[in-house]
Amino acid sequence: MSRYQQRCDELGEWIKGDDLDLFIVTSRPNLRYLTGFTGEGIGVVGSDPPVLITDRRYEIEAGEEAPGCQIIFAEQGYLQQLASYLAELGGCRAGFEDEHLSYGSHKKLAEQVDNAELVPAKGVVERQRAIKDHTEIVAIRRAAQVISEAVPRIIAELTTGITEQQLSLRLREAILQAGGDDVSFEPVAAFGGNSARAHAVPTERKLSQGDIVLIDAGAQVDGYCSDMTRTVVFGEPGQKFIEVYQIVRRAQRAAMVAIVPGVVAAEVDAQARAVIDSSPYEGSFGHSLGHGVGLEVHEGPRLGKKSEEVLEVGHVVTDEPGIYLPGWGGVRLEELVLVTEQGAEPLTQALYLEL
Amino acid sequence: MSRYQQRCDELGEWIKGDDLDLFIVTSRPNLRYLTGFTGEGIGVVGSDPPVLITDRRYEIEAGEEAPGCQIIFAEQGYLQQLASYLAELGGCRAGFEDEHLSYGSHKKLAEQVDNAELVPAKGVVERQRAIKDHTEIVAIRRAAQVISEAVPRIIAELTTGITEQQLSLRLREAILQAGGDDVSFEPVAAFGGNSARAHAVPTERKLSQGDIVLIDAGAQVDGYCSDMTRTVVFGEPGQKFIEVYQIVRRAQRAAMVAIVPGVVAAEVDAQARAVIDSSPYEGSFGHSLGHGVGLEVHEGPRLGKKSEEVLEVGHVVTDEPGIYLPGWGGVRLEELVLVTEQGAEPLTQALYLEL
Repeated sequence: MSRYQQRCDELGEWIKGDDLDLFIVTSRPNLRYLTGFTGEGIGVVGSDPPVLITDRRYEIEAGEEAPGCQIIFAEQGYLQQLASYLAELGGCRAGFEDEHLSYGSHKKLAEQVDNAELVPAKGVVERQRAIKDHTEIVAIRRAAQVISEAVPRIIAELTTGITEQQLSLRLREAILQAGGDDVSFEPVAAFGGNSARAHAVPTERKLSQGDIVLIDAGAQVDGYCSDMTRTVVFGEPGQKFIEVYQIVRRAQRAAMVAIVPGVVAAEVDAQARAVIDSSPYEGSFGHSLGHGVGLEVHEGPRLGKKSEEVLEVGHVVTDEPGIYLPGWGGVRLEELVLVTEQGAEPLTQALYLEL
Repeated sequence: MSRYQQRCDELGEWIKGDDLDLFIVTSRPNLRYLTGFTGEGIGVVGSDPPVLITDRRYEIEAGEEAPGCQIIFAEQGYLQQLASYLAELGGCRAGFEDEHLSYGSHKKLAEQVDNAELVPAKGVVERQRAIKDHTEIVAIRRAAQVISEAVPRIIAELTTGITEQQLSLRLREAILQAGGDDVSFEPVAAFGGNSARAHAVPTERKLSQGDIVLIDAGAQVDGYCSDMTRTVVFGEPGQKFIEVYQIVRRAQRAAMVAIVPGVVAAEVDAQARAVIDSSPYEGSFGHSLGHGVGLEVHEGPRLGKKSEEVLEVGHVVTDEPGIYLPGWGGVRLEELVLVTEQGAEPLTQALYLEL
């Protein structure tokens, strides 16, 4: 049995338990997870075989990637095709992904399908995806190796005058050279004060001696992502950088130790946050500690102040505290870890500064 | 008056006409269009000044980019913050973007806001955005120049053995070198049979003598996109390629001539399609003729078989017919054009093959 069939079967069990006949999949990564298809479309699980509605632009991909599905090419939009499909089935109860279907699309669909009951469901496939199976962990491990190789290589190459954009491009190249199929997101390179932006976008700023250099990047292997951040100084680190770096590293370690199966995610965030908030930089860690990583670089579980999710064996999450000081700069350190019976196993491996 | 204020005022007039007090903006490009803010968040237009709900990660960007807005940093999610804001206002009628708010988010919001009426609206800001103003056309012209410079440079550099991925990376580099701030999408380079995929993703396939080379790429300048496709042969084009190329070029020209203010978009698509469907390659043009381009590389108006939209002065659209023959390859030619009083003005300028 293919892993896609296995996942569809698992989802099929869930929908039966919820008294549904079908489950409509409109999220693209969820569709890929369940069918293997990488293009745009809508899936219907619960039919035998599962149905994939796409269009002729993806004719080749659909045939190659989703041989286990009945493929329907939509002539006038996926939603209309889905409506026709449901209408032909006669009465049924179909779950839909309420976070991945717009208010407008739901309304349009509901108007066209009068014999099917559309039942909102939230995060069903996301919960399936959060626990990684063997083949997924293999791919994420490789993606983590690729980024662990690419980032130090780029750090070793830093030269005066290179721009953030050029460095981002070099990162991309290094990721492909190291065996990545693609980047998992636009590589971030932020110099000096730009490193204080938690979501920096590469600019034409040139690297100068003494600049902080924050690199946040990830690779994609077989569709699976990695995500890693390192912060260094181009030249000699000053006293303040050393202090900030050590606090962030301590925060990161505190979280790492707290990651065990059964812990509530908010508790892990709290461990890291306590380190920063008991330092002179209280309040300067303005984002969540981490997030799950898989087919998407941001997925469940979330590790934030209010996260009630419980960590389980097979979760893959980031541990990425940071201190951001507008005007001065920022330090973020991010590790990708697998939750095992024994606790957190780091998947990314690049070295930290010995300060 | 800043252009953002002007756009918010224009939207403000529209909502008054629709008997709304406020308009909630959840689409990211729509938010950027109305406020200048490039991060994640939710906008509320109709308040004076407009409100921008974001979070601390974007503290620097929000202050720099959206000085005309009242900025609110959400502590527990944008939707909850929006709900609090609406609740404090007391009774009001607030429009929302029904294509950019999920069924689940709408439900959550509606449950929390009992004194405001949420009114679905569709494509309001998109219609505003479809007609480009002077500063937008300036940016798109520059983005078109950048891609018109980058693509021929890359075509001139083709060498045996380069992979699609490497070529995609070189395209990205050439786009930055030519003055682009970024690419407008992952550059497509498809060799040989891969060019038959209308949505090809660069692979590790190496270039061989005689391969078809399809390049589809765009630049971003000041947030605005360009989009252009050229197809060539690495070596001497064969008889079949010449025939297919000429038909696609004729189809493209037929559409170009049909683009005038007042024409229905479906009619433009039909002109190009008629050329292909009256050739031996009938049925091999499996996608729409084109789409609008602006802050997004795919936006309105759409030029497809069923598009009822009427082209107007200030629209910027693509004209991109193609013939795709699985097993052999494909030819797509794409020009970006501005709709003027006089008809279609091409913004992309790279040469075509003289066959």
